[in-house]
Amino acid sequence: MKKFVNDPAKFVPEFMKGIVLANPGLLEFNEEFQMIKRKDAPNNARVSIVQGSGSGHEPAHVMAVGPGMLDGSCQGAVFAAPPVDACYETIKALASDAGVLVLVNNYQGDRMAWDMATEMAQAEGINVKQFHINDDVAVEDSLYTVGRRGVAGNFFVIKACGAAAAAGKSLDEVYAVAEKVNNSVRTMGVALTSCIPPAKGTTIFQIGDDEMEVGVGIHGEPGRRRDTIKPADVIVDELFDAVAQDIPFVSGDRVALMINGLGGTPISELYVLYARAHERAEQAGFTVVRNYVGEYCTSLEMAGASLTLLKLDGELETLLDAPAEVAVRIF
Amino acid sequence: MKKFVNDPAKFVPEFMKGIVLANPGLLEFNEEFQMIKRKDAPNNARVSIVQGSGSGHEPAHVMAVGPGMLDGSCQGAVFAAPPVDACYETIKALASDAGVLVLVNNYQGDRMAWDMATEMAQAEGINVKQFHINDDVAVEDSLYTVGRRGVAGNFFVIKACGAAAAAGKSLDEVYAVAEKVNNSVRTMGVALTSCIPPAKGTTIFQIGDDEMEVGVGIHGEPGRRRDTIKPADVIVDELFDAVAQDIPFVSGDRVALMINGLGGTPISELYVLYARAHERAEQAGFTVVRNYVGEYCTSLEMAGASLTLLKLDGELETLLDAPAEVAVRIF
Repeated sequence: MKKFVNDPAKFVPEFMKGIVLANPGLLEFNEEFQMIKRKDAPNNARVSIVQGSGSGHEPAHVMAVGPGMLDGSCQGAVFAAPPVDACYETIKALASDAGVLVLVNNYQGDRMAWDMATEMAQAEGINVKQFHINDDVAVEDSLYTVGRRGVAGNFFVIKACGAAAAAGKSLDEVYAVAEKVNNSVRTMGVALTSCIPPAKGTTIFQIGDDEMEVGVGIHGEPGRRRDTIKPADVIVDELFDAVAQDIPFVSGDRVALMINGLGGTPISELYVLYARAHERAEQAGFTVVRNYVGEYCTSLEMAGASLTLLKLDGELETLLDAPAEVAVRIF
Repeated sequence: MKKFVNDPAKFVPEFMKGIVLANPGLLEFNEEFQMIKRKDAPNNARVSIVQGSGSGHEPAHVMAVGPGMLDGSCQGAVFAAPPVDACYETIKALASDAGVLVLVNNYQGDRMAWDMATEMAQAEGINVKQFHINDDVAVEDSLYTVGRRGVAGNFFVIKACGAAAAAGKSLDEVYAVAEKVNNSVRTMGVALTSCIPPAKGTTIFQIGDDEMEVGVGIHGEPGRRRDTIKPADVIVDELFDAVAQDIPFVSGDRVALMINGLGGTPISELYVLYARAHERAEQAGFTVVRNYVGEYCTSLEMAGASLTLLKLDGELETLLDAPAEVAVRIF
């Protein structure tokens, strides 16, 4: 297993500890519940934004904690939902007079944990709402999901809700922002390789040396089909068409365009994909107002990428422009 | 070959086009010389900072073009120095009354190209100096290098020189900053896998399923030894000791600490390494004033990482704090 790990069972708390050591002024770590939160949250003047899911998708979700983004996140083991008590303690730790919004990517395991935790918190009088993100157009229903899966579009929901909360919007208003972004964002991905969860020690699916999985899920769930690897532009064309036709996006739209790496693909290749995607967007009459190229929602060291389009308007552009800070940074 | 490419011969210009399409206000692309430059450079009021090397190390070098960083960069093919005429044209395109500083990572191919280009530019009356970066402590002399190799420490040289140039320092003063950073920065890396250059289509070295290369170069050059993979903390300890004993760093030092991914290692694993490195730095009596965890200087999709320490003082901290902007960003 070609990985930097100590005890595989401690992989998640060890990397979480690293995140907090690297951001000592900003973040604090609760090891018992594998939860990272902003030191200055909750703040009763604003809604708390919370998320928690399986690990292995970094920087989602736990590295997205910071001002203008998540207030806190609890992590399960790699590709496993966090336990109910961790979700419950996370809601309690971030309970604000203004309320708590839990953003859940649509997987049955995560939903079950957060449903129970939300009920428990509500029974204690905490004002908490839950929203489900499901931007993946590849398939309806999946290995671990009823309905569509939540993938890289999650970043935009967090960014917009975090900005709305920072601006003092009410819980209902922030929830409406989540709904608006989720209704406006679509993603599809492709995998060239599997990945190896540290505690498993072997790949999560088999794929031939000349094969790709079109429409893959971020836990290696099957997509639309297995195919031989195609040139980059052909792959982008399929992702772009699937995504753009879904809402649909139409000529004249202002969009954000994201090429998200799944973990093992170098950034140079992501920019090869971006070049084609940008051209396709322009040919379709879209104005690419903002772009995002890098890793936002990964599957450990999986080689692969996804393409996301977000339909913008003045409100969403303002929310995306608002200042934000997370553990992942260059400078 | 599990890669997003079209024609492998066009891999470099295609990803460069993507970078510029993603940063239309900031950058412009000269395809003939595979050169990206700031649109607003040269500026005769400040020194131009220039670099150019083989591709495959992204975000170094070409994604480091931007305000407060490089003014321009020309790229060779993957792992091949840029041609002399590209280097010469890059110097000419960035020629400023205040002078041009060329930052060269210490590889013979790059030095030869930039030596000739610098001479040609000087013969035309352009005020240009050249500085060689050699922060890799792993080995003296290497496959493609006389003396030590230049690796991830390059980021700090660029950042500090870019800030000094933006502050209006003279060419001699900016050169002195490069010298100071290079004298204060040390790096060592380890590889778990090889990588596959698109035009080659096969790995650049062989390595067993349970092996690692300690002290690897960013073109797969041999390091200090081949060994079986060790726990993450053991690996960090060896890198940390090699780096910290080299200047040496001493108790009481204020340092910047970088864990750099070599391309195929997920950021979660980099934070496992960071946690140990941070602890070792504290145990050694260093104050970690700033930290950097992510990809700064890679080797395509190689699984691996390097550890860098930079000894700080007030001047360097101010230069690192100065605003800067590059193609690689989260928001």
